[in-house]
Amino acid sequence: MNIVLLSGGSGKRLWPLSNDIRSKQFIKIFKTEDGGYESMLQRVYRQIRQADPSAKVTIATSKAQVSAIRNQLGENAEVSVEPCRRDTFPAITLAVAYLHDVMGVTEEEPVVICPVDPYVEDEYFKAVEELGRQAAKGEANLVLMGIHPTYPSEKYGYIIPDDTSSISTVSTFKEKPDEKTAQEYISQGALWNGGVFACKLKYILDTAHELIDFEDYADLFDKYAELNKISFDYAVVENEKKIQVMRYEGQWKDLGTWNTLTEAMEENSVGNAVIGNTCQNVHVINELNVPILTMGVADMVISASPEGILVSDKKQSSYIKPYVDDISQQVMFAEKSWGSFRVLDVENESMTIKVTLNPGCRMNYHSHRNRDEVWTVVSGEGRTIVDGMEQKVTVGDVIAMEAGCRHTVIADTKLKLIEVQLGREISVDDKQKYPLE
Amino acid sequence: MNIVLLSGGSGKRLWPLSNDIRSKQFIKIFKTEDGGYESMLQRVYRQIRQADPSAKVTIATSKAQVSAIRNQLGENAEVSVEPCRRDTFPAITLAVAYLHDVMGVTEEEPVVICPVDPYVEDEYFKAVEELGRQAAKGEANLVLMGIHPTYPSEKYGYIIPDDTSSISTVSTFKEKPDEKTAQEYISQGALWNGGVFACKLKYILDTAHELIDFEDYADLFDKYAELNKISFDYAVVENEKKIQVMRYEGQWKDLGTWNTLTEAMEENSVGNAVIGNTCQNVHVINELNVPILTMGVADMVISASPEGILVSDKKQSSYIKPYVDDISQQVMFAEKSWGSFRVLDVENESMTIKVTLNPGCRMNYHSHRNRDEVWTVVSGEGRTIVDGMEQKVTVGDVIAMEAGCRHTVIADTKLKLIEVQLGREISVDDKQKYPLE
Repeated sequence: MNIVLLSGGSGKRLWPLSNDIRSKQFIKIFKTEDGGYESMLQRVYRQIRQADPSAKVTIATSKAQVSAIRNQLGENAEVSVEPCRRDTFPAITLAVAYLHDVMGVTEEEPVVICPVDPYVEDEYFKAVEELGRQAAKGEANLVLMGIHPTYPSEKYGYIIPDDTSSISTVSTFKEKPDEKTAQEYISQGALWNGGVFACKLKYILDTAHELIDFEDYADLFDKYAELNKISFDYAVVENEKKIQVMRYEGQWKDLGTWNTLTEAMEENSVGNAVIGNTCQNVHVINELNVPILTMGVADMVISASPEGILVSDKKQSSYIKPYVDDISQQVMFAEKSWGSFRVLDVENESMTIKVTLNPGCRMNYHSHRNRDEVWTVVSGEGRTIVDGMEQKVTVGDVIAMEAGCRHTVIADTKLKLIEVQLGREISVDDKQKYPLE
Repeated sequence: MNIVLLSGGSGKRLWPLSNDIRSKQFIKIFKTEDGGYESMLQRVYRQIRQADPSAKVTIATSKAQVSAIRNQLGENAEVSVEPCRRDTFPAITLAVAYLHDVMGVTEEEPVVICPVDPYVEDEYFKAVEELGRQAAKGEANLVLMGIHPTYPSEKYGYIIPDDTSSISTVSTFKEKPDEKTAQEYISQGALWNGGVFACKLKYILDTAHELIDFEDYADLFDKYAELNKISFDYAVVENEKKIQVMRYEGQWKDLGTWNTLTEAMEENSVGNAVIGNTCQNVHVINELNVPILTMGVADMVISASPEGILVSDKKQSSYIKPYVDDISQQVMFAEKSWGSFRVLDVENESMTIKVTLNPGCRMNYHSHRNRDEVWTVVSGEGRTIVDGMEQKVTVGDVIAMEAGCRHTVIADTKLKLIEVQLGREISVDDKQKYPLE
């Protein structure tokens, strides 16, 4: 089965754990069997591979998320990268063209498109497989997954099926309604549209060629910035008559707010936290190294990262966005394909960062125009290359690099270093990359 | 007037802003006229000097607090340092011997002893002056300040006066009572004993010579570790017949818990904080560089420092101590006589620290047995001395020092550096000091 996972969003709703470059699907919050924690992305990817070890999973995403995806899923995960953001129709088309032209999937094969961030049980992926098989039959051009609604949500579009059988044709779609209207839809047997659907590759490619002038994947990729922003629902689903819907009645949760996310946590805390015995219904997620102590509070989420600290009533937490919009701040931590970094200190003309490289990984070979850098290795072993000169480095080694100097570090073991950046105009954009000579 | 301020305590009740080396009196929480913040210590010191510019103020404290006192009050503040902690009778005796033998105060002059941490209005210091003048009259050996009780507290001892005049003799003392008994005392006209009293120097010196075998200040200082731990109340007050009490009816608050401390805050937040408009009676004190956002909560104190984060119902916050006892952690920040430091990162064999030196200040000339250090100057200008070699340093300079190497840095302007400590046994005790050659 071919599965495209749509990995989008730049979540402000889960601040401070999500930020401009870390979306909610990357937050490691779900307990694994070995006692560690995994993210929504890791959980979904693992669940798919457990349900169908032969599934071909491609993650359709933006440039900004590629490093985090590589960091969490490894180098072997297939990723179709959008050069820029152009809503779901261009994104899905690009991913399907990637499947066809790069991965060699034939036009007659089915593909299932689903968002990466629902919180689901393993049985969901059996339904996903089933959806693909139904699409392969060719009874309809599109097969949607209709999710059994658990409350009259105002967040979802509703699918009105023609009958109550497990697979049926679709009578009509309804846009996100108000609560009262949603209740009416539900009493009429309506289902949530969670954005999960299957079809043959051919269907998407043909529709796309009607709407976009492009040759193949490479051509579409080159033209991507010129495409109109348009959603798949608007460009395709609303104009399609031959649609089936398949009912899914299992657990399906959109963990988009702190309130819903904490409901899915197995324990009341992740990270260094002491929850006093006078607390009730309190969840603490702490990504800082210092303890959080909470006493005598109820129905609350407390969350801390290098970006900031949130203390909120759980229900109120869904109104977080305007507050976070006002908190303008540089990115204080990020996952990279080679590891991660965290800002430790910011001064007017300097910034101190902790850099962690995974074993066998290396940064791009690069230079900066406007800043000097000093590395002090604090853990592990590796090699630096500075203006073409390679040397072994280990704990205590200091490497000073002036602006303009080309440099990289290669981790032979897990390697950590403190990087002090020095200059008047320190910016993440001040970076020129070079091939390694 | 001679005033001895007793600066003691190692506050766990105001964690994470107080820790093993920072007591509550050093927390900068009170808004000043110029828009900055001052600590209880700075506030009391300023209030005394405003009330009586000629007052001779001596701060009696332990070694551990000297650096913070110098940092907050400057080099000119008179400090009588206890070599170790021996409760209030030895501490007061040592401070009074310091006044007599070092500062040349005569035996007939009065001295007022008061704790450094009550939160009071300026008029309190008029009462302190008055207390001193009353002691100078010699009508009694001791004159206590009797604080008008505002509620039947179980925290204070009670003074029962003989009559209701503003100055009267004392009938008896009552130990800390339960609430009901306290209420009875108050209805009988009892006053709180806040530990504020005045007497002539001679009285304390004579009493001390009866109880302790010592010659003078220097001798007492040398013998200090051998002295019994005993409180002034127990050693002196309870055995003295000629005691007067002077009523003080103005504001006098003991800001020993988050609940009482936040009552004294002028605004609801100190530091980087966003308090949502659905919050009620919330106080945020944030000493971290990242924002705290709070939404939909009530009657709460939120406090963050490099040591940790507290989120507590205000009333519950008085039960903090056992929780903090369980949070064992190294000291993450400290004020020093020359500036301050903050731990940025801890690894198995390294620790990264940000060091800030005030203009004109320098560290001790010192070496470490078990760790190398790397300094990178990130702000300001100064000079380093490394194994006797002095050199100018400025932003971007890197100084690598191996274990055993003697070193210091002198700040010509405010100077900040990132210090990476490297070694298997990193400890604050690993420090040998040397005179500057």
